[in-house]
Amino acid sequence: MSTLTAPLESIVAAASAAAPAFAATTAQSRAQALVAVANALEGEKPRLVEIAMRETGLTEARLTGEVTRTAVQLRLMADAIVDGGYLDARIDQADADFVLGARPDIRRSLTPLGPVINFSASNFPFAFSVMGGDSAAILAAGCPLIVKAHSGHPELSDATAEVATRALAGAGMPAGIFHLIHGRDAGIAVLQDARVKAGSFTGSIRVGRLLADIAASRPAPIPFFGELGSVNPVFITADAIAERAGEIAAGYLTSVTGSAGQLCTKPGFVFAPEGSTLPAAIKSVAGHPGEHRLLDPRIATGFATRRDEVLGSPGVTPIVEGGVRFDEQGHGWATPTVVAVSLENFRAGHDALVEESFGPLSIIVETPEGTDLASLMPEFYEGNLTGTLHLSAQEATGTTANAAELQSLVTAMSHQVGRVLFNGWPTGVAVTPAQQHGGPWPATTNDSSTSVGTAAITRFLRPVAFQNAPQAFLPDALRDDNPLGVPQEIAAAGLSQEWGARWE
Amino acid sequence: MSTLTAPLESIVAAASAAAPAFAATTAQSRAQALVAVANALEGEKPRLVEIAMRETGLTEARLTGEVTRTAVQLRLMADAIVDGGYLDARIDQADADFVLGARPDIRRSLTPLGPVINFSASNFPFAFSVMGGDSAAILAAGCPLIVKAHSGHPELSDATAEVATRALAGAGMPAGIFHLIHGRDAGIAVLQDARVKAGSFTGSIRVGRLLADIAASRPAPIPFFGELGSVNPVFITADAIAERAGEIAAGYLTSVTGSAGQLCTKPGFVFAPEGSTLPAAIKSVAGHPGEHRLLDPRIATGFATRRDEVLGSPGVTPIVEGGVRFDEQGHGWATPTVVAVSLENFRAGHDALVEESFGPLSIIVETPEGTDLASLMPEFYEGNLTGTLHLSAQEATGTTANAAELQSLVTAMSHQVGRVLFNGWPTGVAVTPAQQHGGPWPATTNDSSTSVGTAAITRFLRPVAFQNAPQAFLPDALRDDNPLGVPQEIAAAGLSQEWGARWE
Repeated sequence: MSTLTAPLESIVAAASAAAPAFAATTAQSRAQALVAVANALEGEKPRLVEIAMRETGLTEARLTGEVTRTAVQLRLMADAIVDGGYLDARIDQADADFVLGARPDIRRSLTPLGPVINFSASNFPFAFSVMGGDSAAILAAGCPLIVKAHSGHPELSDATAEVATRALAGAGMPAGIFHLIHGRDAGIAVLQDARVKAGSFTGSIRVGRLLADIAASRPAPIPFFGELGSVNPVFITADAIAERAGEIAAGYLTSVTGSAGQLCTKPGFVFAPEGSTLPAAIKSVAGHPGEHRLLDPRIATGFATRRDEVLGSPGVTPIVEGGVRFDEQGHGWATPTVVAVSLENFRAGHDALVEESFGPLSIIVETPEGTDLASLMPEFYEGNLTGTLHLSAQEATGTTANAAELQSLVTAMSHQVGRVLFNGWPTGVAVTPAQQHGGPWPATTNDSSTSVGTAAITRFLRPVAFQNAPQAFLPDALRDDNPLGVPQEIAAAGLSQEWGARWE
Repeated sequence: MSTLTAPLESIVAAASAAAPAFAATTAQSRAQALVAVANALEGEKPRLVEIAMRETGLTEARLTGEVTRTAVQLRLMADAIVDGGYLDARIDQADADFVLGARPDIRRSLTPLGPVINFSASNFPFAFSVMGGDSAAILAAGCPLIVKAHSGHPELSDATAEVATRALAGAGMPAGIFHLIHGRDAGIAVLQDARVKAGSFTGSIRVGRLLADIAASRPAPIPFFGELGSVNPVFITADAIAERAGEIAAGYLTSVTGSAGQLCTKPGFVFAPEGSTLPAAIKSVAGHPGEHRLLDPRIATGFATRRDEVLGSPGVTPIVEGGVRFDEQGHGWATPTVVAVSLENFRAGHDALVEESFGPLSIIVETPEGTDLASLMPEFYEGNLTGTLHLSAQEATGTTANAAELQSLVTAMSHQVGRVLFNGWPTGVAVTPAQQHGGPWPATTNDSSTSVGTAAITRFLRPVAFQNAPQAFLPDALRDDNPLGVPQEIAAAGLSQEWGARWE
């Protein structure tokens, strides 16, 4: 039945065998295990960061901060599950007078899907890799986890896995709940295995689509949560530029150049009024930025090609010229490139220009007075992770003459993105409960979910209802005596006669 | 760009154009519209039921009850949205001392996906058809609705659509939010259109898979919620039979024969101890049941073939013989068939026997003493909508010698079904908040959702977050003054230092 190699077969078999025991663990014990992993990663920070610097070219400051972020993600997920609210426990009391005839006692809560494969990202070797956000959500949900390591940081992946394995075992978790595998073929074979019940991924549109199609075309299809590509349009009003051009320019450059622009939320396009002082402000704050190594030679070559393509598109003018230099190992070292183009030339060169540039490059589109900004969203973009609006203090009150126009733009963005920002920059995604990191295709494969924030856990759960179950056979979260003290949403008997009555 | 015929193009364009206005309606106004549709359907009940009887062969009693159920579903959805809890509004307060550095104000709630196509079912001409459960959920969510009529009841579909259109307009809903189309090609063309954002379906595995594959392979894939096939295994203990064989036999026959067994939750298989009195009890309560017309000639032919196949499988013994008679119009008239087979012969004939029989046929599998019932679930079944256990009053206390064995069976069922029942029958799905009507493939295409119960609405929503948004540009549900009074889950500043601290 299985087409797996022997080592993969034993991994999938172990994950599958561990699923019932892991599903039966208490949220509290899983929370303790997640915190143990967080502590263990922080305890090994210097060693792990050293490997990561060598493998990814990211800076020590960035990577040190990323380990902390990863630990915080694990702790947030731990805290998110312990009160049991994530189980969405609902109890409908039996009701002899139910409007459609006597209704049984029905109780429903969420249960783990089973083994999940998570494909790591290249650009967050900690926070979206072996023990990153998706992994934390999968383990928090109670699903055995198989991580497919990213080929860009194999040694770090092994080292992280070793730390995590030890911490999970030390916290008393069942054996077999966590495995690391290497190689694309191995990842695909596991994704195709009937015992694997979901997949998650962070990476390119091309690979994400390939994997999503595999998940959807299995004999038994499974959900696949991919975070793919995004160009994150930003709109800046004339008044905002008049108010604080220098501040905006500085924030913009920081957001474009941080981590060499290799972030899924990098602002790829900025719409600003034609003839504004923004380009000059950017030029004046740019100075002489240092080089930053790109993640790997393949990404560097791709970025250099893409940059040439953008610079060669008709009407594109450099504001900050930047460049890419290749060293003897084939690594590319980039300095930031910012260009400007008129709306007319952006329209003409749309297909060449609108694609994501994965690296430190951003495009300013200069819009003539009277441009209907809201209509630019559906004209130029599919789904995106973010959309941003910079407005002046006066405009923020919603009382200026252009308030309706700005509201239309906000609404248009909310139809095509997962997060709408005001007076900020989309990089630096806050790890907080209400965060939404997702968006319509191709930003993600599934825009009803998020890969950051506590709602990320729900991706790996499914509901099961129990009808007229004796107390002895109910999950703890659904029992009358509620031994875990989880929030239970109770629909009392006798209410159905009133349904809709308020709205006659 | 579009490959739609002119009439379909105008329908999809109208639905797409109506989406922003419909998304902007208040939950209260949509609730009023849903109740108006419910009232209008009940007001036209005699006329609609007359058409339905002619087109489907279902009985007046069943169809009259189904109109009531449909109205109740609409009223339940109305009540489910008005308090705004379905929006899952979350507010993370800005936090200068956030553990990863100052965090912005982030607010998140759910927003409608946009136009949705719903493919109607054959077997519930009201409750899963034009204004059935999926349609109610789609409209409740604020998504424009395009219904593809089932070919089995085209006249009823038109009549229902006319009643609904009038009621929606009368309730002041925007034009263009509801359309009815006919024909499979039309349905597929609409499902493929980029402006359509999700699909729902109730029907066979074959057609559901076809449509799910189309939804997944679009240039921009969309979620597709299909409720497909299920055989709903039932397990009955020796003690339960000893306690109440007659009652169980009567309930079983009612569940198998109601609506001529053309229900997705019909109990297709019953596992009972070898040599029990259950077959005799069934025989004695069966009597001479009347004929019931099957929905359409195609379903009747399919059922007759399937019945012959089951009866011809080695070791299959009739308990209640039943049959199918065809009239001059090609309609099939069925009486119930119940057969028994040993576990050994069920194993031998598994591939032929285990498939769903859509009609009044059910198979009793007689299990030798000592059979590990829990292991039969993964051995014989993929996903199912339901799994049922009948046990004695003493066994229900969880204190009998076989309690651990019964718990294993319950756990095994919960891994493969969406609803686990005790001492009841899976037909007659209660329309209540905690209901779960869904299950692992092939019961549904997406087992993290339900098509009955208030959680059904969430299928047609996606989250959007707002970061540092001025109050004037926030959706009402996320504003500080909370003008709609919706539940807001607030993460206060200053808590992040504590994350995980409890679990050190």
